[in-house]
Amino acid sequence: MTAIVTLLTDFGTVDGFVGAMKGIILNRAPHATVIDITHDIPPQDIHCGAWALREAAATFPRGTVHVAVVDPGVGTARRPLLLSSRGHFFIGPDNGLLSLASEPGCPGWILDRPTWHNQPVSSTFHGRDIFASVAGYLAAEISPQDCGSPVSNWIKIEEPVSVQKTDTIQGQVLHIDRFGNLITNISQQLVGTSDAWIVKLADRPIGPIHQTFGDVSWGEWVAYWGSSHLLEIGIYGKNAAAEINYRGGSAEAIFVHLIK
Amino acid sequence: MTAIVTLLTDFGTVDGFVGAMKGIILNRAPHATVIDITHDIPPQDIHCGAWALREAAATFPRGTVHVAVVDPGVGTARRPLLLSSRGHFFIGPDNGLLSLASEPGCPGWILDRPTWHNQPVSSTFHGRDIFASVAGYLAAEISPQDCGSPVSNWIKIEEPVSVQKTDTIQGQVLHIDRFGNLITNISQQLVGTSDAWIVKLADRPIGPIHQTFGDVSWGEWVAYWGSSHLLEIGIYGKNAAAEINYRGGSAEAIFVHLIK
Amino acid sequence: MTAIVTLLTDFGTVDGFVGAMKGIILNRAPHATVIDITHDIPPQDIHCGAWALREAAATFPRGTVHVAVVDPGVGTARRPLLLSSRGHFFIGPDNGLLSLASEPGCPGWILDRPTWHNQPVSSTFHGRDIFASVAGYLAAEISPQDCGSPVSNWIKIEEPVSVQKTDTIQGQVLHIDRFGNLITNISQQLVGTSDAWIVKLADRPIGPIHQTFGDVSWGEWVAYWGSSHLLEIGIYGKNAAAEINYRGGSAEAIFVHLIK
Repeated sequence: MTAIVTLLTDFGTVDGFVGAMKGIILNRAPHATVIDITHDIPPQDIHCGAWALREAAATFPRGTVHVAVVDPGVGTARRPLLLSSRGHFFIGPDNGLLSLASEPGCPGWILDRPTWHNQPVSSTFHGRDIFASVAGYLAAEISPQDCGSPVSNWIKIEEPVSVQKTDTIQGQVLHIDRFGNLITNISQQLVGTSDAWIVKLADRPIGPIHQTFGDVSWGEWVAYWGSSHLLEIGIYGKNAAAEINYRGGSAEAIFVHLIK
Repeated sequence: MTAIVTLLTDFGTVDGFVGAMKGIILNRAPHATVIDITHDIPPQDIHCGAWALREAAATFPRGTVHVAVVDPGVGTARRPLLLSSRGHFFIGPDNGLLSLASEPGCPGWILDRPTWHNQPVSSTFHGRDIFASVAGYLAAEISPQDCGSPVSNWIKIEEPVSVQKTDTIQGQVLHIDRFGNLITNISQQLVGTSDAWIVKLADRPIGPIHQTFGDVSWGEWVAYWGSSHLLEIGIYGKNAAAEINYRGGSAEAIFVHLIK
Repeated sequence: MTAIVTLLTDFGTVDGFVGAMKGIILNRAPHATVIDITHDIPPQDIHCGAWALREAAATFPRGTVHVAVVDPGVGTARRPLLLSSRGHFFIGPDNGLLSLASEPGCPGWILDRPTWHNQPVSSTFHGRDIFASVAGYLAAEISPQDCGSPVSNWIKIEEPVSVQKTDTIQGQVLHIDRFGNLITNISQQLVGTSDAWIVKLADRPIGPIHQTFGDVSWGEWVAYWGSSHLLEIGIYGKNAAAEINYRGGSAEAIFVHLIK
């Protein structure tokens, strides 16, 4: 069996923390392939981490163990979680971080078996002592059922869904990427042929859906299908989010309309 | 066979994009060793990417697949390219990025076989859907001939060569490293014994060629053989490029003279 | 045998230098697992590198080869070093960098055998030409005795130890982490039951030892056991080091008292 373990954290890489997690994994599973997804999630930004995990995880082969740690509640009562979804395993805190990459009704377990933890468990570094430790054992030898008690009520990030009517589709901006492009909840699959539609961002007319940035002039707004096959809105060569003063997260909803 | 796949991009690591490329590679080649060269090439700086690729790639074993993505033209007509040079494979956009690490007349192929792409191919993320996908198949099972149609006219970064006369060698500054040291096109092999020569940077006398920074005092200019065995010029403990207001890239040529 | 080689440097990742080290390692040991601990040690900060190496290395399996390069003296007379401690190998410059992760009296060797170096050895990049090269051979085929001549007088970072009296324990702040938390030399093992003690940072009363940050209110000072099971002092949600204007390194000692 090929054992692949991925890591996604907000730890940065100035300290040895990420290295300590890798060591624990390889200690339990010396033949595992350990893969960095990222350690540069903005500190404690669970939503951003959940997006990056969804973006990256789906491309890995079945059986991959994904360890994700963006964990403002470490040391409190928040539960350590394992989910098994579409052939992938997700390990991390029960704070919504794992909920976008996994299916809503998938099997889950609370990691409540001290046998698989790194003892003594510190109260500030569950990334090493619980999440990496269980991931290593899971990659090497144990089954998800061994990891802890079944659970079904973990915390989920709820994302608004787009609404389709006869001649309009209404969606929202869900996320901004590091270039300032606005990613919406309107999927290519839902829209079908792009030609028929005109895009509006709140009250701002954007125009038809293009193939790529290069189809408009530098500095112009453009709507296009992004890498996740969701509608994205950007400005060629500029930061669209900065342009409209949008900072993501808790801000008010920005509606996007497609009109025939 | 050991399959090693390296990655060099300008994606940064805030999003899940690099992770998605790794997943695609391991999906096609689960036993591959995936190695990060860097994801911090300055955005869209093809020249800097080409230098870093040349610096890093040569040390890897034969058979390594190097995936490089600095790709301002993604989604336009620029072609996806595979080169086979000195036992290494190079995959990336046809924009010069691969041209310093590979030999000028080496075999090349355009990646025009949709079978080896990640379908549906997005128009903004060929790093995942074309380059990583073909790299994974190439690492696992297919030959370069399977990847696409032969090509010989790819884009090359042309670098000026140094000129040797009886008592002088004239070269140029080609690159600055992150410490601000100036890397020239004058090779140790060409110069031979260092003792005979005095270095000038434009009109500034630098002095003889030293072994290392430590041979001069703090704050002094120094010429020395760098890690690529090219003549470098720096200031001990300071940023030489900043000192002379040099920013690399499109700036005017700065000539370097060695005088006997 | 599983060959794991870790890398810790202050090279950053803008250039291809780290990639070149990985290539050299895989060239000598194609089946090695190459693991990044970090490349973001503050430039030339040997003390910070030594802390991160100690934090990370201990978790890896026996037989792991750790390559660490924070090397302001590259090209001077400082010696290249190999230590064998608690089943781990440590390779790097003899400047104290390896001395916190290894036991004081462990076996050591100077890397003075040109056979195992990458020839010609540059004077500015021993990370590639000596340290990575020897690490690759050591991971693949040779024993530590083959690497060079035995040595016992390498440079050590001396850390002050805490002093226990009947009703007090006196320690010092040794390190700040990237969040600005102050890590002391007072170990959980020494203190035993936390309940009995009250903590003072210089003249500032901090209070009892808590389980975690969440036990105090936002903005309050808190003492707690950190991930290395050492007493740490921080401010919930703020940067404690900035608050007291402490910058680590060469600053004056800040004493910490535990009082019954």
